[in-house]
Amino acid sequence: MASSSEPSALPTLLVFRVRELRFLAALRERYRVLDFFTSGSPLAAFLAAAAGGADPPRALVTVGGDSVRVDAALLDAVPSLRFVHSTGAGLDHIDLGECARRGVGVASSGTVYSTDVADHAVGLLVDVLRRVSAADRFVRRGLWPLHGDYPLGSKLGGKRVGIIGLGNIGTLIAKRLAAFGCVICYSSRKPKESVSYWYFPSVHDLASESDVLVVACALTRETRHIVNKDVLAALGKDGVVVNIGRGPNIDEAELVAALKEGRIAGASLDVFDKEPKVPAELFSMDNVVLTHHVAVFTTESRSDLRDVTISNLEAFFAGRPLLNPVLHS
Amino acid sequence: MASSSEPSALPTLLVFRVRELRFLAALRERYRVLDFFTSGSPLAAFLAAAAGGADPPRALVTVGGDSVRVDAALLDAVPSLRFVHSTGAGLDHIDLGECARRGVGVASSGTVYSTDVADHAVGLLVDVLRRVSAADRFVRRGLWPLHGDYPLGSKLGGKRVGIIGLGNIGTLIAKRLAAFGCVICYSSRKPKESVSYWYFPSVHDLASESDVLVVACALTRETRHIVNKDVLAALGKDGVVVNIGRGPNIDEAELVAALKEGRIAGASLDVFDKEPKVPAELFSMDNVVLTHHVAVFTTESRSDLRDVTISNLEAFFAGRPLLNPVLHS
Repeated sequence: MASSSEPSALPTLLVFRVRELRFLAALRERYRVLDFFTSGSPLAAFLAAAAGGADPPRALVTVGGDSVRVDAALLDAVPSLRFVHSTGAGLDHIDLGECARRGVGVASSGTVYSTDVADHAVGLLVDVLRRVSAADRFVRRGLWPLHGDYPLGSKLGGKRVGIIGLGNIGTLIAKRLAAFGCVICYSSRKPKESVSYWYFPSVHDLASESDVLVVACALTRETRHIVNKDVLAALGKDGVVVNIGRGPNIDEAELVAALKEGRIAGASLDVFDKEPKVPAELFSMDNVVLTHHVAVFTTESRSDLRDVTISNLEAFFAGRPLLNPVLHS
Repeated sequence: MASSSEPSALPTLLVFRVRELRFLAALRERYRVLDFFTSGSPLAAFLAAAAGGADPPRALVTVGGDSVRVDAALLDAVPSLRFVHSTGAGLDHIDLGECARRGVGVASSGTVYSTDVADHAVGLLVDVLRRVSAADRFVRRGLWPLHGDYPLGSKLGGKRVGIIGLGNIGTLIAKRLAAFGCVICYSSRKPKESVSYWYFPSVHDLASESDVLVVACALTRETRHIVNKDVLAALGKDGVVVNIGRGPNIDEAELVAALKEGRIAGASLDVFDKEPKVPAELFSMDNVVLTHHVAVFTTESRSDLRDVTISNLEAFFAGRPLLNPVLHS
């Protein structure tokens, strides 16, 4: 690797898929960056070269989604690693058990994304109920002057919105939707004492009592396919699904089938099972809204993300407490 | 007209452009409806026949937008009219001065639409800042797997939103956006004592201090082109315009020019100067959102509208006080 020959007193940093140039430049100012994305090497060769170099990396910056998984195999390949910082909003790409067993510290980007994700979730919900992007298509196709049929939207006020996962993001979604006059229900591992929303221990029961189901939970073994065929049936033909969690939180094949057969009324999705693949059946549906995992993407959150990542790295290398620890090393 | 030969003890009602069949049916149950839209007659002939019939109409139901104007000429043609109910959200199609002079009562549909319009305004604002419908186009065109460039959105929190017209709708918009962490500023004829938002007597000064300008005022002689070239210049190249008022509240040619030349950052529009005509230059822009005057259109508001229209008509014919009087007869 070109970078391994650089003379450098900077600590070595392993980087996966940080594609923003400004962010990479900020990292390169502070660290000897070994960047898998630009290395052109296969993963095993890249990791072997990093581990075998003069100053093997103690820290790793990674992202979620379709990037490399931080699992036993990776930690075995680079045993010098002592710290992993995730720039993604989720942590499902990191095997936290393996990190804990080896004493590898893990930090997340904390709540950098939370308000943006909550805002996007509400945007998706307003869009699918009030048919905003469908109307935009209608206008751009020149159909308005033809006075074509256009279905009415559905009012937000009074709608029962069931939020799956009332964590930081779910709570911000609830706060926003309350201002629209929505009735907030939720399910989570246990009821939150700080809120007065209607709690359901079961997602199935939550769906039965909801007009809109919003998936705002992390992806874990327990929450994979938490919205399945039964939950969609409980939601019913007038129900709408919004997903800003992770694609595999929903059984996507069942969701597509339910939409095709009119067993639910609509869906607004920022995440998908096999990104960047989106089921092609959805492209022709006017009652769905599709965005490409952009709920976290604003200029402001990018800047905050650079700051929090560098602060966590500096804390790790200085032996200070992490800002957003998930696991202490 | 076919309906004039019906034997009927029902009061006669003049109706313009109520196209919803269920609404028309509800009116026909209660009144002898003379419907211009289905009459097939030219306006003058239709009005002359109505005025010259055995039971000339005392009441009129009309809608806004591109429908017939209730002005001196119409009131002269049907001098029996004593009451006008507007089913539109605005009243700019009714010459209130002429109605007042002749003692013709006017009622509106009150606040039936307000929450729906406010919800749609917020949906438009989230969409244009967070690029929701642009992302939906990106996905449906199959561009995601190609990893094409996609511009970041802009965070809602901390944005200064200037609302032109803090009436019923403007106030509901402000309430919703406050939950997103937006900073609310406004202009109106005079400051509202009941709110703590930042007041600007001048729309130009409001635009200078705003990231987003939301047009939520009625269309009057004073508010025509209230967003003009100078106001757009004050808003600046990072500024965004949302319009759920009336098309002519904005100098549309200047808006299109400012968008084409990058002198403002984007626009989200539900209303246009010459509906259903939308300037074709906008169709290719990714930083605009276009909906076809649907901010009032939900199943729920349609049902509420039928109720309030019939209640006002019943009150008029029974000599009781109107529910939503604009002018007393």
